[in-house]
Amino acid sequence: MKINKGVEWAGHACALLVPLWPDKGLSLSALAEFHELPEPYMAKQMQALARAGIVTGGRGRSGFYTLAKPPGEITLLDILLAVDGEEPMFRCSEIRQQGPCASKPKDCKVPCNIAAGFWRAEEAYRESLRQIDLATLSGAVAAQLGPDKVAKAGEWMGANARSRT
Amino acid sequence: MKINKGVEWAGHACALLVPLWPDKGLSLSALAEFHELPEPYMAKQMQALARAGIVTGGRGRSGFYTLAKPPGEITLLDILLAVDGEEPMFRCSEIRQQGPCASKPKDCKVPCNIAAGFWRAEEAYRESLRQIDLATLSGAVAAQLGPDKVAKAGEWMGANARSRT
Repeated sequence: MKINKGVEWAGHACALLVPLWPDKGLSLSALAEFHELPEPYMAKQMQALARAGIVTGGRGRSGFYTLAKPPGEITLLDILLAVDGEEPMFRCSEIRQQGPCASKPKDCKVPCNIAAGFWRAEEAYRESLRQIDLATLSGAVAAQLGPDKVAKAGEWMGANARSRT
Repeated sequence: MKINKGVEWAGHACALLVPLWPDKGLSLSALAEFHELPEPYMAKQMQALARAGIVTGGRGRSGFYTLAKPPGEITLLDILLAVDGEEPMFRCSEIRQQGPCASKPKDCKVPCNIAAGFWRAEEAYRESLRQIDLATLSGAVAAQLGPDKVAKAGEWMGANARSRT
């Protein structure tokens, strides 16, 4: 079970947009350039983020993107679900309703214990990601980078960011 | 991100072997029959469980399987990892080491905050599954089924279970 690789890219792209909120954003080509990623694939992630209401922008605006809401209101879970899809990881095919000792559908209103266990774990997973918002994440990234690298990134931002039009 | 469908099948097969521990087990064909599942695909899951030390048996013993250890020592996490693989769901490709503001590898000894967030969530997921052992699960399944269905399944077991040879 692997998370779509685009989730990592989308997460980094969103983190890059945090210091520009609320007035500024980056072009698709700048978003791709910052992490040396192929532009078409970066476009795919940005479109998924836009569909989920995490960023605004896209093709109609020449691939210029800004966060769509305050960084404190966007979580890693939002980014995961936007890019990787909303469906649960575990699918229950109700095999308890098959075979010589099959349960009747009417007796299967409560989820099977195996499915329930996996779904409970999945909720713990999601809850953990729900606790990490972009504002907190961005602060932690800056602290980890240290002042010199933050200044260098700030310089790059200054040269590449544009205002919302 | 989807869990391998075989995890559900393997979970049900293991649950079926719980009441037979420690002396008895089921043939591959009986394991497949109980949930009306195709035998070759059930074989694949049982082989994965055997490789992980969760069941004993397999081809060399005519496809006869028993649990390899007490049900209280086997968790849903063990079954997931056996069938779906041990690798983490989130892969970090260290894209912070790319582009115009790239970090140097020597400055990346601490995981990136985005990867760390996903890995922490994954540990919460695994910890939740680690709490559910087969003994507890089997008790919950029996309680959910009720006495009539447990008796019917017991009858089927009596007709199909064999002793370890």
